[in-house]
Amino acid sequence: MKNNNKQFAVIGLGRFGSSIATTLFKLGHEVLAIDMNEEQVQKISETVTHVVQADTTDENSLKALGIRNFDVVVVAIGEDIQSNVLTTLLLKELGVKYIVAKARTELHGKMLTKIGADRVVYPERDMGLRVAHNLVSTNVLEYIELSPDLSVAEITAPKILVGRSLAETNLRVKYELNVVAIKRNEALIVPPPSDEKIRTGDILILIGQSKGIQKMEELE
Amino acid sequence: MKNNNKQFAVIGLGRFGSSIATTLFKLGHEVLAIDMNEEQVQKISETVTHVVQADTTDENSLKALGIRNFDVVVVAIGEDIQSNVLTTLLLKELGVKYIVAKARTELHGKMLTKIGADRVVYPERDMGLRVAHNLVSTNVLEYIELSPDLSVAEITAPKILVGRSLAETNLRVKYELNVVAIKRNEALIVPPPSDEKIRTGDILILIGQSKGIQKMEELE
Ligand SMILES: Nc1ncnc2c1ncn2[C@@H]1O[C@H](COP(=O)(O)OP(=O)(O)OP(=O)(O)O)[C@@H](O)[C@H]1O
Ligand SMILES: Nc1ncnc2c1ncn2[C@@H]1O[C@H](COP(=O)(O)OP(=O)(O)OP(=O)(O)O)[C@@H](O)[C@H]1O
Ligand SMILES: [Ca+2]
Ligand SMILES: [Ca+2]
Ligand SMILES: [Ca+2]
Ligand SMILES: [Ca+2]
Repeated sequence: MKNNNKQFAVIGLGRFGSSIATTLFKLGHEVLAIDMNEEQVQKISETVTHVVQADTTDENSLKALGIRNFDVVVVAIGEDIQSNVLTTLLLKELGVKYIVAKARTELHGKMLTKIGADRVVYPERDMGLRVAHNLVSTNVLEYIELSPDLSVAEITAPKILVGRSLAETNLRVKYELNVVAIKRNEALIVPPPSDEKIRTGDILILIGQSKGIQKMEELE
Repeated sequence: MKNNNKQFAVIGLGRFGSSIATTLFKLGHEVLAIDMNEEQVQKISETVTHVVQADTTDENSLKALGIRNFDVVVVAIGEDIQSNVLTTLLLKELGVKYIVAKARTELHGKMLTKIGADRVVYPERDMGLRVAHNLVSTNVLEYIELSPDLSVAEITAPKILVGRSLAETNLRVKYELNVVAIKRNEALIVPPPSDEKIRTGDILILIGQSKGIQKMEELE
């Protein structure tokens, strides 16, 4: 289990940062949680390995923490873009191997990538996307964008498709969608044969362009 | 297309609220976006149907907006818990049919449910959970639990699999995993033929038991 006992540091203990820190700790990893605000640091102290109150825009503080020895450092500072960017820059300069940084906007994200963040995340935007898709159609159980063009969706089979085989639904041509699996009760049919008939209650797992999935959501 | 032309209102245009509002609008729905802050309102004005600058803790403002005629109202006010709770309460009293409210903490969420929110969301907490799971293995780009037993993962092909065909990797028998798609540069190969050889940089989209995916994550 090579992945076990990784050392993580999380900087910025807002809602997002503290959720990451406590989850990683629960998953069995060592987690150092850092915030400049004493209150945030105290709140989390029981649910991570170590806590430190520090301003991470100060290079000497970062060095003193031995930050470069961590496998992954998460920058979850949100509102203060300058602190977020400067912290990321310092981490990179200090030789941190894998940096995850939270971005506010697309532009901010591009900047973080340029600076050397290995992964940029947009928690609020992504959850907004997901909740919006879930609200529009009660058929959609899960919706995840893999890239701007490509999404995976888990959808309750629309009534109009019930009784038809996958080939007959022609989703591939009509919506450029691929049904990669069917969940039927406890069973998973993967890959589903093209003559497989869709039944009431089937859950379809689809891959394709967001546009096609959108059209699918509108079927009854 | 029964689901089209639903009327949505989104209150609080931070990162989460504006992502929901613009996504719903892109999906073809009518969206009224509301914030007390003029700047937030102006920023979003081109990407939703209507915008209004208003303090939603003021009952008369809400009434004037005809808020009860909307199908779904999202309360995305985050930091000011009092405004969040009071807004939700007023929406309920005014007879809004479906209220989605953003919560900061578990306790806050319980309160919102008691007041009558139909759905409570914790965007930062949920994304923190998800990102934490993804970070445990750096191969994993996306990880979504479809059910306690079943997950979809997007994984950079481990080096040890490069040069082998899907059939040769034997992932189906070894880990009970199904490769449902391969992302290669801009192309999506779906379904991938069993004699398809994995190349460096390929991204595999897998479906299977969380346990199998976890084992896969540990391959180098
Ligand atoms: N220079 C810094 N050094 C250390 N911690 C910092 C620094 N700047 C900000 N922080 C901390 O980062 C935390 C998260 O930042 P902030 O509240 O701005 O983000 P947010 O995006 O609103 O968070 P969330 O939405 O996840 O609650 C705060 O607790 C703040 O004290
Ligand atoms: N009473 C109110 N009426 C209308 N809008 C309000 C009210 N109170 C706060 N807002 C607005 O809600 C928006 C989001 O609130 P806030 O920034 O506190 O949440 P947040 O959780 O930090 O947001 P996010 O993380 O999604 O960016 C702000 O633009 C703010 O102006
Ligand atoms: Ca904050
Ligand atoms: Ca936030
Ligand atoms: Ca905010
Ligand atoms: Ca790994």
